[in-house]
Amino acid sequence: MKWSQFFIPTLREVPGDAAIASHRLMFRAGLIRKLSNGLFAYLPLGLRSFRKVESIVREEMDATGSLEIKPTVVIPGELWKESGRWFSMGDELLRIRNRLDADFVLSPTAEEAFTALVRDELNSYRQLPLSLYQINTKYRDEVRPRYGVMRGREFVMKDAYSYHTDDASLDETYQAMGRAYRQIFKRCGLSVIPVRADSGAMGGSGSEEFMVESEVGDNTLILCKECDYAANVEKATCKEVGRRKEEGGSVLDTMPSLEKIATPGIHSIADICEFLKCDVKSSIKTLIYRTNNKDIPFVAVCMRGDIEVNEVKLANLVDASEIGMASDEDAKRLCNASFGSLGPVGLKSMPIVADLSAAAVPVSVVGALEDGYHYKNAVYGRDWEAWKVADVRTVKAGDLCPHCGGELYQKQGNELGHIFKLGYKYTKSMQVSYLDEEGKSQIPTMGCYGIGIDRTLASIIEEHHDDKGIVWPMSVAPFQVLIVPIKYEGAAKEAADTLAAKLEALGAEVLLDDRNERPGVKFNDADLIGIPLRVVIGDKGLANNPPQIELKKRSEEKNQLISLENSAEMIYNEVRAGLACPL
Amino acid sequence: MKWSQFFIPTLREVPGDAAIASHRLMFRAGLIRKLSNGLFAYLPLGLRSFRKVESIVREEMDATGSLEIKPTVVIPGELWKESGRWFSMGDELLRIRNRLDADFVLSPTAEEAFTALVRDELNSYRQLPLSLYQINTKYRDEVRPRYGVMRGREFVMKDAYSYHTDDASLDETYQAMGRAYRQIFKRCGLSVIPVRADSGAMGGSGSEEFMVESEVGDNTLILCKECDYAANVEKATCKEVGRRKEEGGSVLDTMPSLEKIATPGIHSIADICEFLKCDVKSSIKTLIYRTNNKDIPFVAVCMRGDIEVNEVKLANLVDASEIGMASDEDAKRLCNASFGSLGPVGLKSMPIVADLSAAAVPVSVVGALEDGYHYKNAVYGRDWEAWKVADVRTVKAGDLCPHCGGELYQKQGNELGHIFKLGYKYTKSMQVSYLDEEGKSQIPTMGCYGIGIDRTLASIIEEHHDDKGIVWPMSVAPFQVLIVPIKYEGAAKEAADTLAAKLEALGAEVLLDDRNERPGVKFNDADLIGIPLRVVIGDKGLANNPPQIELKKRSEEKNQLISLENSAEMIYNEVRAGLACPL
Repeated sequence: MKWSQFFIPTLREVPGDAAIASHRLMFRAGLIRKLSNGLFAYLPLGLRSFRKVESIVREEMDATGSLEIKPTVVIPGELWKESGRWFSMGDELLRIRNRLDADFVLSPTAEEAFTALVRDELNSYRQLPLSLYQINTKYRDEVRPRYGVMRGREFVMKDAYSYHTDDASLDETYQAMGRAYRQIFKRCGLSVIPVRADSGAMGGSGSEEFMVESEVGDNTLILCKECDYAANVEKATCKEVGRRKEEGGSVLDTMPSLEKIATPGIHSIADICEFLKCDVKSSIKTLIYRTNNKDIPFVAVCMRGDIEVNEVKLANLVDASEIGMASDEDAKRLCNASFGSLGPVGLKSMPIVADLSAAAVPVSVVGALEDGYHYKNAVYGRDWEAWKVADVRTVKAGDLCPHCGGELYQKQGNELGHIFKLGYKYTKSMQVSYLDEEGKSQIPTMGCYGIGIDRTLASIIEEHHDDKGIVWPMSVAPFQVLIVPIKYEGAAKEAADTLAAKLEALGAEVLLDDRNERPGVKFNDADLIGIPLRVVIGDKGLANNPPQIELKKRSEEKNQLISLENSAEMIYNEVRAGLACPL
Repeated sequence: MKWSQFFIPTLREVPGDAAIASHRLMFRAGLIRKLSNGLFAYLPLGLRSFRKVESIVREEMDATGSLEIKPTVVIPGELWKESGRWFSMGDELLRIRNRLDADFVLSPTAEEAFTALVRDELNSYRQLPLSLYQINTKYRDEVRPRYGVMRGREFVMKDAYSYHTDDASLDETYQAMGRAYRQIFKRCGLSVIPVRADSGAMGGSGSEEFMVESEVGDNTLILCKECDYAANVEKATCKEVGRRKEEGGSVLDTMPSLEKIATPGIHSIADICEFLKCDVKSSIKTLIYRTNNKDIPFVAVCMRGDIEVNEVKLANLVDASEIGMASDEDAKRLCNASFGSLGPVGLKSMPIVADLSAAAVPVSVVGALEDGYHYKNAVYGRDWEAWKVADVRTVKAGDLCPHCGGELYQKQGNELGHIFKLGYKYTKSMQVSYLDEEGKSQIPTMGCYGIGIDRTLASIIEEHHDDKGIVWPMSVAPFQVLIVPIKYEGAAKEAADTLAAKLEALGAEVLLDDRNERPGVKFNDADLIGIPLRVVIGDKGLANNPPQIELKKRSEEKNQLISLENSAEMIYNEVRAGLACPL
């Protein structure tokens, strides 16, 4: 392909709203253009890399035995009403009404569409397991799209869904997907952090997120300095230190007695600890949450004074899809005390959740459920009990690894992929069934597996760039070899044309910069668009005996002079080496 | 690929709403399933053929030098407001409002999106011509989707747009696209009818539709029995017979005089001709149309009695985007006469359009603009004149070819592709400009070129099927070879596995029916899904010396016994022969 016949509108300037390297470089290198906030068009150069990522994903999915299908992007609202997501999903679900007043959604994921298709075709256990996927347009009505294609409104996702007779079969496909995902990201040259969230207790259910580090990532990751523990902060746990109730009654006997103390005008944990000259780790704070679980409209949560609530964990614990802090009015109405004086001792008006950290404080300072008073020496199991003792804490840097006890640290990350054991959520609500070996009707269990194609592409650029531009891994480069004749005329033109033809005949993807531009412009553009191998052909080198050309890897500073003769074979070997071993 | 590991839910029954063969067979062969009215999911087998059509289109587009890009499916409404189509397009345009109250459309075509991208990047004449395309999801909010994917709501279209400095450059790309389209349809095994609608008068503007014959086609085609004239009835013309005004005054002198005759209670053309014992070809009917051109709110149209108005031609002639028959009340108010008594003699209240057929009647019977009266012997040029004499007739079977005078006949057809010289419609309204060689700002001219992928696929099945199922051309078959072991065990299993592996190593796409089903079931399914080459392997043939297997083309009745040894090479040669020469 000749540059002049291609369309690569490179830019010197950076768009004003481009906060991250991939966004800046995708614009500057002419890979994408913006149609509107969160809506991007891939230009020819960008689309070539986009399709390569797609192909890698497709090959690895096919290798797992998953079968590609193509449902529509517009999905009947009826199916989303059956699953319940029409009602439960927020405004990021773009709901559409057509001219005949029928409801539709612009697919953000496709559990409903796939499950409806499977429901209609599934009769017998012999058809299972069944794993289907699509690589197709998705839409999320983001309020604040940002970071280019990293968080756009319209994007392409590979989403797969599998159906199984039992957990063992689901787990087999889930593990195969995990291996495929590792292979996909490896082939794309990406360093991913696999973040597991297995909850072993629930019969093999679990999920794994594939994250890349990013300063502007949506996710906070908790990682261990000693072992490979990695978790999303929403689910991260840590090693608990301190007393457990189970240590028994004999310990309780040695504790000092509960003591009520006047603490006029003191509300915050910091102030009360200073007033009583106690460590914050000996205090317990009590918070009240509203929930949308009708059986538990309010719940009190006790945390060690220095530890924050993790609302995701709490919501799961109380089986609510939404929770929020209760108002001070609610607190007064339900507890006869304001926020600063809440405590678990004597609290009867709602269930109490004690974080493991709170239950582990030997003797603690707590609010006395009476404005202006606190208790000293409150002992869990003696002075107060909880409805549930559970992990509802937000783990943070400095906490201890739940696996090895090493120190945890945190990073921001972006999720590129996610594999998830869904279980029966959709197959039950959408009434999918099959007949088992004994002819009895059964409901299949289900897994889902997603990868964002746009985000994967942007992340490759995040990981592979320098000050001058993109440094494409060979596997996803839009072209593999860039031939730059210093001037596209005479002997240099002939050598360039011949080399390009030979390389293409061998199977390499070649871009030839035939523009009538100064060498500096051509070299800058070459660095910007980041083709892995650059070949410079000039009259000077050609005048050597034997004639020479210059070969430079985009990822290296040094270049080498090589003999023009047999250069095609040598360069093609570099292409193959690059494909075999992504950066 | 083994059948048991694939997903081919074949059906014996025909869906109730499937009126055409492709719709029936795509369901029965497990190529598609319905998600909702007009929304179809491609299953794995269907998607394989779909992707092959896409690939053929992509290869031929790339060969024209057009560059693939990927804009979004959701397009900002702002761009459609700029072009004016937000307002001018009907309810088949699905307009969306997002959570922030911004307007969007679900792309039915992409003139606006492409033109907006080009507008932002175009500076110099040196960047032109520029030809860009996408193969992407489209949406039309059809009121009555039907015939399966032939007329669905969501579909995939290849749409290309080209930008040029002048008509000669546009024409060059237009001709290249025409050649590419012929090549695409040929490779898909389709017999298309190219329907030209060149209007030579407008400086090279024109269009060409690529139609396939279909009983349920949306388009009526007018074709010549003698030459290759083919036109959409909306634009078809025919040879006019009879007198023309230009034949001069001397002819007029020989005509009998105008005569007013009482015709009480007679309104229809048939009745008046019977009453006056004249041929319907000597009568002229006068119709009144409303238009949305403010300068011409009403227009009278005179047609020879046996010829119908073509409203598309009429609307173009009066420069209106909408026209419709006026009401009888309008007729009375404007002409002092009812529908049955309208005529051109003395009509002053609105412009008169005379169809060529009407102006060519030597002496005619016309309404007298007075209820209960008609004129005999009305002569165009003597008794009445027209604002415009033009072709506004609906051409029909039996009319004469405008090129050769041969007899015309008609067919119903479906449009698979369309190439069109748009001119300046979008580049002007969206203010696209570039600097020419003299540094002066100029507006580029534009062409657009579409192919419906779904419809092309369905049309292939329409053309290539029999009573038993689909008969795929090799180029678009989901698999090229189907291996059917009578029983998948023992020597037959070994022979089948070995042959499949050898064929795949050669590069063939093989489906192996490893199901534990009766041979009759397997053969019926084989005929239904229509893989071009079927290989049957049974113990009986294998027991021969040397061992034999059976090879049968889906398109032929006869089968042949071939030696198992070297059968892979022989079968692969058949695959290559099929690819080289589509049915």
